[in-house]
Amino acid sequence: MTTRPHRRGLLVNEALTLIRDGILDLSIAPGEHLNERYLMTRFKISRTPAREALNRLAAEDLVDIHPNRGAFVRPLNATELKELFEALRVAERLACYFCNFDDPELIVDIKHIHDEHLRAVRERRILDISYWYREHRSRIIETSANRHIIGFCYRIFDQMRRVVSLIYRFEMGQADFPQHQLRLLKRYHADVLAHLQGRDRRRLLEAFLAQADTFERRVADALLRSRTIDFLELGRPLSAGSSAGTAPKSG
Amino acid sequence: MTTRPHRRGLLVNEALTLIRDGILDLSIAPGEHLNERYLMTRFKISRTPAREALNRLAAEDLVDIHPNRGAFVRPLNATELKELFEALRVAERLACYFCNFDDPELIVDIKHIHDEHLRAVRERRILDISYWYREHRSRIIETSANRHIIGFCYRIFDQMRRVVSLIYRFEMGQADFPQHQLRLLKRYHADVLAHLQGRDRRRLLEAFLAQADTFERRVADALLRSRTIDFLELGRPLSAGSSAGTAPKSG
Repeated sequence: MTTRPHRRGLLVNEALTLIRDGILDLSIAPGEHLNERYLMTRFKISRTPAREALNRLAAEDLVDIHPNRGAFVRPLNATELKELFEALRVAERLACYFCNFDDPELIVDIKHIHDEHLRAVRERRILDISYWYREHRSRIIETSANRHIIGFCYRIFDQMRRVVSLIYRFEMGQADFPQHQLRLLKRYHADVLAHLQGRDRRRLLEAFLAQADTFERRVADALLRSRTIDFLELGRPLSAGSSAGTAPKSG
Repeated sequence: MTTRPHRRGLLVNEALTLIRDGILDLSIAPGEHLNERYLMTRFKISRTPAREALNRLAAEDLVDIHPNRGAFVRPLNATELKELFEALRVAERLACYFCNFDDPELIVDIKHIHDEHLRAVRERRILDISYWYREHRSRIIETSANRHIIGFCYRIFDQMRRVVSLIYRFEMGQADFPQHQLRLLKRYHADVLAHLQGRDRRRLLEAFLAQADTFERRVADALLRSRTIDFLELGRPLSAGSSAGTAPKSG
């Protein structure tokens, strides 16, 4: 009996990780209804941990809880994307403004993150690509040592992981993948590294904002040209019945 | 039996409101240890709602949960204040940048908030003073219609409520209260209103940043000159035994 709270904690954390990863790599579709019963069955947890997992995902802004309708994966429709890119530009600005170039581990860590990021693209691991995308920026804003600013940026970069997944799910279907993406990414990494080493906030920001522009174009491309996934369905939480059917499958 | 989850929900919400209000008006001291057993006894709730209340306060950044030591009210020491004012200036900047002056209710609502704010100062209601402080800024950033930006600003303005409480707890003990504060506040309100009506983002920001400067000076004053409250103790979570004794009392 004494081990129960611990065991329960583990179950919640395991379930939480699985659900979160599913949301981030879009194998659980934006707008999808996540009811407690479904979580209880799928992850073999009881009602309290299922509810706790949903509350924690809501606290991370990945899930919306509507009082009488239940929990839904945060949509990723045109409105959401517009708001997210607006917030991303704020977060990039903060990262550049508050970056502490004196952090002695910064350059080494960024190089490591770049290598892992490239490897994930080469090996077509979507969840990891978005993870290293997030780590790149998170590592920079982390140097600010301001918990409020860090907290905001983490949330935005976490939300951006779904956008990264959306882009890569689309681009992996194209003939020039991954050569084209690796070329783009290497050039971008080299720019960021040079500006970090040169302690040049202005050019660092320019590099980030240019990448945000590129990203926005790539999302538009994915949304307009994809035929394999009905992206127009993404983020319509009210059509709960159909959204599961439009979810892109993992792998 | 069917009413239990509902009843439980009410209990959590009631307890949550009481604890949150106590944290915001500093009647529960920064750094204070909030263990589950204490919450269970004080608010007559069982372990699960007590834990849920703590998790929600942690999600609001009002409480820190340390894995093996338990939950503590977020400190309000020099480091915290520095970070908070840094983040406040970011939030003010965002409020001015993203404010949508076309919101047809904005001016009417702001006037109402100003009136209530002045009344709360006149009547020495600390919790309400900080509430209307928060509402003022929240109403402006709300017009941005960007959930990410709004979420960040809300968090910062909520944290600032504790700073407002700290200042007013000190200033209420002074001879010229509330006349001096009412004069300052009226002038500030008039400026903000004029810039909102004139749709002047730059001057609106200047008014906000000037108030942030004034606030920072008033906090320094309260910290340096107060003898009734041992402010140096605020935010030392490890001296758990003594922190309750240094908590300023309500009213």
